[in-house]
Amino acid sequence: MGQLIQCVPNFSEGRDAKVIEGLLDVAQSVEGVTLIDASSDESHHRTVVTLIGNPAGIEEIAVRLMRYAVEQIDLTAHQGEHPRMGAMDVCPLIPLKGITTEECVEVAKRIGQRASEGLALPIFLYEAAASVPARRNLARIRKGEFEAMANKLQQTEWQPDYGPSAPHPTAGVTAIGVRQPLVAFNVNLNTADLSIAQEIARSVRGSSGGFKHCKAIGVMLEDQQIAQVSMNMTDTQKLPLYRVFECIKLEAKRYGVSILSSEIIGLTPGQALADSAAYYLQLKTFDYQQQVIENHLI
Amino acid sequence: MGQLIQCVPNFSEGRDAKVIEGLLDVAQSVEGVTLIDASSDESHHRTVVTLIGNPAGIEEIAVRLMRYAVEQIDLTAHQGEHPRMGAMDVCPLIPLKGITTEECVEVAKRIGQRASEGLALPIFLYEAAASVPARRNLARIRKGEFEAMANKLQQTEWQPDYGPSAPHPTAGVTAIGVRQPLVAFNVNLNTADLSIAQEIARSVRGSSGGFKHCKAIGVMLEDQQIAQVSMNMTDTQKLPLYRVFECIKLEAKRYGVSILSSEIIGLTPGQALADSAAYYLQLKTFDYQQQVIENHLI
Repeated sequence: MGQLIQCVPNFSEGRDAKVIEGLLDVAQSVEGVTLIDASSDESHHRTVVTLIGNPAGIEEIAVRLMRYAVEQIDLTAHQGEHPRMGAMDVCPLIPLKGITTEECVEVAKRIGQRASEGLALPIFLYEAAASVPARRNLARIRKGEFEAMANKLQQTEWQPDYGPSAPHPTAGVTAIGVRQPLVAFNVNLNTADLSIAQEIARSVRGSSGGFKHCKAIGVMLEDQQIAQVSMNMTDTQKLPLYRVFECIKLEAKRYGVSILSSEIIGLTPGQALADSAAYYLQLKTFDYQQQVIENHLI
Repeated sequence: MGQLIQCVPNFSEGRDAKVIEGLLDVAQSVEGVTLIDASSDESHHRTVVTLIGNPAGIEEIAVRLMRYAVEQIDLTAHQGEHPRMGAMDVCPLIPLKGITTEECVEVAKRIGQRASEGLALPIFLYEAAASVPARRNLARIRKGEFEAMANKLQQTEWQPDYGPSAPHPTAGVTAIGVRQPLVAFNVNLNTADLSIAQEIARSVRGSSGGFKHCKAIGVMLEDQQIAQVSMNMTDTQKLPLYRVFECIKLEAKRYGVSILSSEIIGLTPGQALADSAAYYLQLKTFDYQQQVIENHLI
């Protein structure tokens, strides 16, 4: 079926049903692109959309979605648990089948070029698409969030890759990147104490001495009064889900807190689930590629 | 890629490396058929081969394998943990992609017809291919095993579907069937006491009041002095792996015994692993079809 790219744009709108509905209409407006998943969270005030399609289709739909987000989402009054700097906050591309990282970078650049034209929207390229090493890490680009972008873009080193040197007044700044697949994995704690989730996030994430391939923040699901450890697992082959899950369970115990539930947002490689099943079921040898029926049907 | 059938012939030879090697050569001798897995067990004295291929290829390879087994495997001196009645003891076909159960039954019949010609081998059809309801259950056909077949085939109700009314002197009797996918799941106990594995098998298997979709026997892995609960999970959607695994763990506790390891022989649907991962990781909602990347590449 040719080349396939996964595209997971994140939008800074998780509450207004009408805006989200319109977003999903746009997300289904290009032939050759399939809407796989859409997940809106009121606390995060964010919608994550998962798309799979051919390169031309992904390019077209990303531009359309960016235009819609600029028109419909206003960051000036936006408050949510998740860090954000723009209406379409971030748009990662992931090579899925028959396509190289380099080819995906070309697609990212075309999206940046096209979207910046006419939208007055500054765009940064990140991770594998980054123009300089300092822009590889999305968190560094986003640091300061929407409110700090006007000052940040004045600095020579933070001139955007595309578009003007000032943030869009309501839609801020967007980052387009190319990265390997990650698993968005959230663990909900049986507590309304946000500081516990933050403390646990600190202990598991690589940046503060935890697992190298784990990014984690503590967030509050206000509507449910549940503290959540919200993670991006950036390499589930090197860091399996069960290891982080069990570590969170152990750390939570210190506070007399247990795990309520967990969730995977969007897509995951089947291998990540198989690895965790194999751990808990004590499978001594299991060859995911060979032993899973579906892998022989691809 | 057209129609695909999975074929999982079981051979009553798990010790003689030369015979097994020859078997695997034959298993790779037909274009359009892929050898996915081969698992030999000395205690079971059995080799299980997993093949995937198009209908014509599966028909051809099954006939070739049956011929090889008749020539190379002698049941008269065979002793192993696993019940058996023939050299190629059983040959199940499983519809995998783009093919109906009925079409697979036609393939099973052609294999039976062709293999019986010239091999003097009685062949029974079982499960979805059975000619009468009493032959649906493989265990009923095999009851009495190799040693009882001469008498059994004298009975009018046990006239074979193909071939002569007497077992082959050294290769016994073969059953060819069509069934839904099952997962062969073995759990090894931290004990050399076979009676414990047998007692646990009794408590989990449907036929003695346990889980409807679980077949289980206790067997001894003599070489390792490990007692094993050896199972066929016939519907992992209705009976997930983790439920049986945890039940075995609970029952073993009564004897002060723990679980050493487990294994899946051959293929499993990815969903069966995902369901167990979801249980242990407490995933509150997870849509296997939608959220696993590989399912979008098929």
